[in-house]
Amino acid sequence: MGRMIEPFAPYRSLLRRTAEIARLNGAAELLSWDQETYMPPKAIHYRAEQIAHLAGLTHRLFTSRAMVAWIAACEDHGFPADSVQASNVREWRRLYDRMTRVPARLVEAMQRTRAHAREAWVEARRRSQYSLFAPHLEKILDLTRQMADCWGYARTPYDALLDEYEPGASTAALRQLFDQLVPTLTRIVAPAAARSAKTPRSLIHGHYPIAAQQAFNREVAEAIGFDFEAGRVDTTAHPFCCSPGPGDCRLTTRYDERDFFVSLYGVLHEAGHGLYDQGLPVEHHGTPCGSPASLGIHESQSRLWENHVGRAETFWRHWYPRACHYFPDLARLTPEQIAGAANHVTPSFIRVEADQVTYDLHVALRFQIELDLVESRLKVADVPAAWNERFEKLIGLRVPDDARGCLQDVHWSHGSFGYFPTYTIGNLNAAQLMDSAVAEVPGLDAALSHGDYAPLLGWLRERVHRHGHRYNPQELMRRVTGHPTCPEHHLAHLETRFLG
Amino acid sequence: MGRMIEPFAPYRSLLRRTAEIARLNGAAELLSWDQETYMPPKAIHYRAEQIAHLAGLTHRLFTSRAMVAWIAACEDHGFPADSVQASNVREWRRLYDRMTRVPARLVEAMQRTRAHAREAWVEARRRSQYSLFAPHLEKILDLTRQMADCWGYARTPYDALLDEYEPGASTAALRQLFDQLVPTLTRIVAPAAARSAKTPRSLIHGHYPIAAQQAFNREVAEAIGFDFEAGRVDTTAHPFCCSPGPGDCRLTTRYDERDFFVSLYGVLHEAGHGLYDQGLPVEHHGTPCGSPASLGIHESQSRLWENHVGRAETFWRHWYPRACHYFPDLARLTPEQIAGAANHVTPSFIRVEADQVTYDLHVALRFQIELDLVESRLKVADVPAAWNERFEKLIGLRVPDDARGCLQDVHWSHGSFGYFPTYTIGNLNAAQLMDSAVAEVPGLDAALSHGDYAPLLGWLRERVHRHGHRYNPQELMRRVTGHPTCPEHHLAHLETRFLG
Repeated sequence: MGRMIEPFAPYRSLLRRTAEIARLNGAAELLSWDQETYMPPKAIHYRAEQIAHLAGLTHRLFTSRAMVAWIAACEDHGFPADSVQASNVREWRRLYDRMTRVPARLVEAMQRTRAHAREAWVEARRRSQYSLFAPHLEKILDLTRQMADCWGYARTPYDALLDEYEPGASTAALRQLFDQLVPTLTRIVAPAAARSAKTPRSLIHGHYPIAAQQAFNREVAEAIGFDFEAGRVDTTAHPFCCSPGPGDCRLTTRYDERDFFVSLYGVLHEAGHGLYDQGLPVEHHGTPCGSPASLGIHESQSRLWENHVGRAETFWRHWYPRACHYFPDLARLTPEQIAGAANHVTPSFIRVEADQVTYDLHVALRFQIELDLVESRLKVADVPAAWNERFEKLIGLRVPDDARGCLQDVHWSHGSFGYFPTYTIGNLNAAQLMDSAVAEVPGLDAALSHGDYAPLLGWLRERVHRHGHRYNPQELMRRVTGHPTCPEHHLAHLETRFLG
Repeated sequence: MGRMIEPFAPYRSLLRRTAEIARLNGAAELLSWDQETYMPPKAIHYRAEQIAHLAGLTHRLFTSRAMVAWIAACEDHGFPADSVQASNVREWRRLYDRMTRVPARLVEAMQRTRAHAREAWVEARRRSQYSLFAPHLEKILDLTRQMADCWGYARTPYDALLDEYEPGASTAALRQLFDQLVPTLTRIVAPAAARSAKTPRSLIHGHYPIAAQQAFNREVAEAIGFDFEAGRVDTTAHPFCCSPGPGDCRLTTRYDERDFFVSLYGVLHEAGHGLYDQGLPVEHHGTPCGSPASLGIHESQSRLWENHVGRAETFWRHWYPRACHYFPDLARLTPEQIAGAANHVTPSFIRVEADQVTYDLHVALRFQIELDLVESRLKVADVPAAWNERFEKLIGLRVPDDARGCLQDVHWSHGSFGYFPTYTIGNLNAAQLMDSAVAEVPGLDAALSHGDYAPLLGWLRERVHRHGHRYNPQELMRRVTGHPTCPEHHLAHLETRFLG
C-alpha cells in the first residue's frame, strides 16, 4: 500500500518536510556507519563537520516557523484521535517542543562539552583514573539539569530525561519496577549460578575461524527472517544496528576466534533490532508512524531474539548439526551443554558481558546512581564510592578498579542520562511479548523447536512492528499484552530457565 | 597553512557557502561510493532519492540570488588577477552561469531521460541490439543540443559540451590534435604489434589468489605515495576513484585470479587519480583552487602512474622480487617478459582493454562520431554503420556486433557528450608532464628505477596538484611544460617504448 493522498494541505506539507529531513538524516546515518566501519582515519575531522552540518540542517528544517504553523493547523483540523495523522501530529508536536525549548547556546555547549568528556572518559577508563573524568561529568550533569529544566517536568528532572528515550515513562513507575525486580533477582543469582556451574562459558572455547562464524551467523540470521537483500553485517569493536533508509539495515558484530558466541549472540541481538527496522511500515517512512516506538521497545526485539529464541535449549537442539558442520570442534559437546554454556550465570563486573540473571542488577545500580546525581542527592566526586558499595550489595563482588566499575560505560560522557533503564524495560517487554505470542500463536513452541521462526516474526510484525510509533510504548504494550510493562513475565522466564 | 582570514565580506560569504555545499557534495559522494560497494540491493530506490535530494539542495545553494550577488561584488572588488581569490571568483562565475542558463525543466527532463536511457542501454548491450537504445539516444541528443544552446557557444555546440569536462577546450584545437595523432598511431600499430607478438598478455596467465594481489597492490600503491591513512581500496565491477572529503580518497578495482595485471594496473591508474586528490591543497577544499583542474589533467595523473611509471621495464626490474614473493608462479618469467606482457600491442574491439598504441584510435573514433551527431551530420540510426566502417579503417578489424561496437560505452546513455576526448588529452598531458619532470628533476630516471617515487610525486605535487583549478588546464600545461597540450611527447614516448 502506498501513502494515500492526504487532502489536508498543512499535513501534506508536514509529510513533504519530514521526508526531506529523513533523507538527510539517513545520509548522516550512513556517514556515521561508514565512520565506524570503513572510513580512513585521517577523514575523522571532516566527517565530524559533515555530520554536525547535516544535524544542524535537519534541526533548522524541523524547528522552522513553517513547521510549527503546519503542526498547529493540523491540531486545529481535528484528525480522528485514533488516526495515523493524529498520532503523527502528536509526536511531531512533542518533538518540536523538545527541540525548541532548549536554546541553541545550551545545545552547542552540550555538544562541545560532550566531545571533550568523551575523550577524557576514554583516557580515564584506560588508566582507571576517575579524577580525569569527574570534572567533565560535573559539567555534563550541570548542562543536563539545565536541559531538563528547559524541557519541563512535573515531579523530577529525571522524567524529562527519560522522555528522550522512552516517551511517557515516569521515574515513579521505574522505581516501582526495580523495587519489584531487584529482590527476586538477587534471590535467584546464587542458585542459578550454582546450577549452571557445570556448564561454564569456557566449555565451548575452541578454534572457530572467522569465515565459518560469518557463514553460520548468516544462516541463522536468515532463518529468523533478516533480509540480506535489504541489509548486511560488518565488523566493529562495538556492535550496533542502523538503518540509513528503507531497504537498508546494517548490523555489526565482532569476532573472537576462541568463542563463537561473541559474534553469534551479537548478530542475533542486532538482527532482532534489524527485524524491527525491516518491519516498520515503509509507507510511513520518515514519520513517527514509520519509526520505532522507543528504545525500550527496540531493545525488547533484540532481547527476544537473542535470549528467548537464541539461548533456548530447543534452539541448540535444532541448530546443532549446522553448528557442527561449520565448527567441527563443537561435536565433542551435546546441544544441552552448548545451551548451558550460553546461559552460564555468574556475577561479574562488566554489564555488557553479564548473563540474563545479573544483567538487570547492573542496570538497577546505574538507575540509582544517575537518579541520585540528577536529583542532587549524590555528588560527582562520590560516584566511585557509591558505585562500589552498592555493587557489592547488589552483585556480591568487590569492584577492583573504576575501569571495571563506574567508568565502564560511555553513556554519561555522552550526556545520556535516562538511557540505562531502557535496557531493563527491553528485557521485561521481551518476556511479556513472548508470553503473549505463545498464548496467541497456536503451536509456536513446536514451530520454534523446528527452526520455523516465521510464525513468531509474523506475530511481531502484526502486533508490534507495523505500528511504528503510532502508540506510545506503554500504550503499545497494553494493546499487545493487556497491561503495561511489568516484571512478572521476565521473572517467571528466569525462574523457568535458570531454576526450573 | 590554514586559510587566511579574508577581509572582504562577500568573499567570506562565498567561502562559507561553498564549504557548506562541499560538505553536502561529500555526503552525496559517499552515498554513491556506498551504492557501488556495500549497499544492499533493496536500498537502491531510496538511495537514488537521497542523492537526487542532495544534488537539488546544493544546486539551490549554488544558484541562489545571494550567491550571484556575492560573486558580482567580488568581481567589482577587483582582486589581483593572479590571486587565489580572482581564480576562485572566475570559476564560480563560470559555474554559476552554466548552472543558471539551463532551465530547471530541461535539467529534470535530462535526468528522467538519462535514467531510462541507462536502463535501455544495459539491455541493448546485453542483447547487442542497437534498436533498443536508438530512440533513447535520439532524446538524449536532442536534450544535449538544447542544453548546449542554453550554455551558448561561438562556433559549435560541441564547444559548450566540452566546457563541462575540460574548461577552455575547443573543438577546433581537438580536431587538430587528432589530425596529428591518428596518422602516426595507425602507422605505429602494425610494427608495434609485430614486435610485441613474442610477449602476449597471456604470458603471465597463472593462478594469483586475490589476497596476494591485494597485498602486492597495496605495497605498490604505498610505494608510489598513496596514503592509506587517508584512503582505501575496495572492489567494484567498474573501477573508480572518489574523494568524499579531505583525508578520504577511495579507490576501487576488480580482480581476475588468472591475470593479476587487471587489479594491479587498475590500482595504479586509480591511485594516480588518488594522488592528485590527496595532493590538492586542503586549505582551499571546496573552492576551485582546492579542486581538480579538469578531467584531462586528472586523467594525466592516472595515465602517468599507470603507463609511464607502471609499465616501464625498470618498474618490473625493481618489483620483480616482491612480485615473485607474492606470486611464485611468476618466477618462470623474466622482468623483461613481464614488462613485455604489460605492453602487449594488439588491435582489439574494447576501448577499456586497449593497449597504449591503439587506445587513442578508439577515442578518435568516438570523437568523430559524437561530433557528427551533435553537429547533425550523422543520424542516430546510422551510428552502427558509421562506427563499423570507421573502426575498420582506423583499427583494421571488422566489428562483429554492436555490443563490441557502438554499444560498449556507458557515456552517451548518460548524456556525456564531450567526455571521451579528455581520455586522449590525459594521455598527451601525461607524456608531456613526464618529459618536463625528467628535464627538471635531476636523477629522476635513476630514482624511478630504484623504486624511489618521491622525487616524481614531489614534482607533481609542486607543479600540478597544489594549484588545484587555480589555472585552466591549458594555462596550467603552459606554465608547467612551456606549451599547451600537444601530441609530440606522447608520440615520442610510444615510438621509444614500442619501436625503440
